Amino acid sequence: MVRNWKEYLLPYHQTVDELLVKLNSLKQQFAICDQHNPIQTVTGRVKSVPSIKEKMRRRYISPDRLSQDMEDIAGVRIICPLIDDVYFLVDLLRQRTDMKVVEERDYIKHQKASGYRSYHMVFNYTVQTIHGPRSLLFEIQLRTMAMDFWSTVDHALHYKHEGKFPVELEKKLQDTARVSFDLDESMSKIKHALMRIKNKK
Amino acid sequence: MVRNWKEYLLPYHQTVDELLVKLNSLKQQFAICDQHNPIQTVTGRVKSVPSIKEKMRRRYISPDRLSQDMEDIAGVRIICPLIDDVYFLVDLLRQRTDMKVVEERDYIKHQKASGYRSYHMVFNYTVQTIHGPRSLLFEIQLRTMAMDFWSTVDHALHYKHEGKFPVELEKKLQDTARVSFDLDESMSKIKHALMRIKNKK
Amino acid sequence: MVRNWKEYLLPYHQTVDELLVKLNSLKQQFAICDQHNPIQTVTGRVKSVPSIKEKMRRRYISPDRLSQDMEDIAGVRIICPLIDDVYFLVDLLRQRTDMKVVEERDYIKHQKASGYRSYHMVFNYTVQTIHGPRSLLFEIQLRTMAMDFWSTVDHALHYKHEGKFPVELEKKLQDTARVSFDLDESMSKIKHALMRIKNKK
Amino acid sequence: MVRNWKEYLLPYHQTVDELLVKLNSLKQQFAICDQHNPIQTVTGRVKSVPSIKEKMRRRYISPDRLSQDMEDIAGVRIICPLIDDVYFLVDLLRQRTDMKVVEERDYIKHQKASGYRSYHMVFNYTVQTIHGPRSLLFEIQLRTMAMDFWSTVDHALHYKHEGKFPVELEKKLQDTARVSFDLDESMSKIKHALMRIKNKK
Repeated sequence: MVRNWKEYLLPYHQTVDELLVKLNSLKQQFAICDQHNPIQTVTGRVKSVPSIKEKMRRRYISPDRLSQDMEDIAGVRIICPLIDDVYFLVDLLRQRTDMKVVEERDYIKHQKASGYRSYHMVFNYTVQTIHGPRSLLFEIQLRTMAMDFWSTVDHALHYKHEGKFPVELEKKLQDTARVSFDLDESMSKIKHALMRIKNKK
Repeated sequence: MVRNWKEYLLPYHQTVDELLVKLNSLKQQFAICDQHNPIQTVTGRVKSVPSIKEKMRRRYISPDRLSQDMEDIAGVRIICPLIDDVYFLVDLLRQRTDMKVVEERDYIKHQKASGYRSYHMVFNYTVQTIHGPRSLLFEIQLRTMAMDFWSTVDHALHYKHEGKFPVELEKKLQDTARVSFDLDESMSKIKHALMRIKNKK
Repeated sequence: MVRNWKEYLLPYHQTVDELLVKLNSLKQQFAICDQHNPIQTVTGRVKSVPSIKEKMRRRYISPDRLSQDMEDIAGVRIICPLIDDVYFLVDLLRQRTDMKVVEERDYIKHQKASGYRSYHMVFNYTVQTIHGPRSLLFEIQLRTMAMDFWSTVDHALHYKHEGKFPVELEKKLQDTARVSFDLDESMSKIKHALMRIKNKK
Repeated sequence: MVRNWKEYLLPYHQTVDELLVKLNSLKQQFAICDQHNPIQTVTGRVKSVPSIKEKMRRRYISPDRLSQDMEDIAGVRIICPLIDDVYFLVDLLRQRTDMKVVEERDYIKHQKASGYRSYHMVFNYTVQTIHGPRSLLFEIQLRTMAMDFWSTVDHALHYKHEGKFPVELEKKLQDTARVSFDLDESMSKIKHALMRIKNKK
């Protein structure tokens, strides 16, 4: 087992700190260039030790496989106004030379049964420690504001309610997932209609 | 007219910096106390000089009345998961002894014609400068994630589209405002149903 | 004894965070006003739990007297170029309306036997928590860069050397304290000579 | 000439922001590993536009050679307790894989006529912009606290005193440079004496 969690997680904290600066800098560049800003907010966190342990049990991850098999110990979330923005950023992230895509999962086109939607990317990244360079994995989740709204409230409701979640309420929650999905669609349609008008001129 | 904008805006920047630390500290306290967190994100900004000038013209604000009549030169936005959270925070903010409520406007109960919803509070606040204490006004806008989604996309679409906005698209945007309003309502209903189940036990 | 240290120290962390923003804002104001900047750096820290416990034992502080009797749980340090800057800032801090001086100790005019010099101020400060306003004590230490150099190296040397410190080296360290004191004096003399030349013109 | 300075300097601001996070992370690693910390403070700045223009004139740098010939548009300063710490960090920086040394100048062994001492390193660094990767130069200055004290006060005195600096005061300033150099030497001697005692045991 990991003996000193504080030391073990240090490079992951470093990774999240560096990514927050790097991705917020992208946001600022879009703002200054006076384009539409595809980035609304960037947040990050290192998984807590209890959550890591719980996930190791659930997924049968052995301690010596932890850094290879748990890809979201360091995690960053990018919230975008619209769905187009998500795919635009996915492309931009793929072209970076300071992090390398290892895996992608598109839970927007293939949403989970619960109603959850997001685009997940796993990257390989190198931090410089006092003992030299060190490579590790981290995850970026990209989602629209409507997806983020739904999953935040979904999480808050399930979290508050220990024990079994009533079936009829679970169903109502899935209805709201569908409605927020429709909102993204409607907004995109309005945006594309506007772009057609603009291009005609 | 204001001669040195950089110097004029300095206490407003100081105000926003202090408020971001203070309100993010509230968020962190809720997180540690393991309660439902009514605060999702806190952001802040000082109005840009062109925006200040434009608003002075539009609202007929004379330079010598600027600091009294423009209440949102320093502005902070608090995004909450649910509507209940907004009113809970409004109450908490009213009880603070480091800022004093000067005005409140409830654009949630009384939404604007455009579909815009938010709760606005104006406060009096004192910063300590190198020339002694200085009082000024600032504004806090509180809204749910669904309201924030709508107004962000609404802003992005209008911003992109210089010139007249087509009537049928404006109508569709108002439909989306209604849908996102319904989303807040549905989520609140699920939450209250859960609380009734909990209290019965 | 304190049951939950994380919760107990939360308002102290909040205090340090707010003070760092407030005092760095002073530094920035001096920089923009293009005056001589009396502030070189501002740093802050909350005392670690082991250090708090060790000091409670050493000073016979009972748990129920902790918040009144230990004044430096939250601590901020201001480093100034010259001695005049220290006293100028002491005066400025006394005039603030957001913190109230409770005690002052001038270890510059009355240096400790070890050679240590600094100006200590204890303040009463109110933070706003999710349970309402809360008053507490914090300490500001002001010192020149030369004083800071000496006490940092003094600390590093003693820290590295567990066990008894050889008498002849202790003596040499006190020599360096005297030399760094003389450096402050010489720099002040040069500064005052320059000011006399300036005023003659 | 550069048309839009704000846009031109954006990647330099990004560089300084990333370096501050990276180098402060090193400092934190040393602190957690409970070793002697060779890093006291890390600061950074982007050169102001007036300073860039002034240096272009003074050094005959043409606008199209600006990014290659001015190496300190982005600059970071690392302050160390002792001289050994400076050379230890120089070595550590040389081994990083995220920045590449282009040039080194040792103004500690070869101090300037004015009394100025510091170790300068120029690096090549790549930032990721919204238009793809972009390479640029930046400078790190490493110095002890005693060197930093001297050069800060030296700068403040010259800055305050427009016009010719009186010869006898210039001489006294050079005396203080010598004294602060001796301080570094004395501290190093005490440290090495302590290490010899330790190793004998």
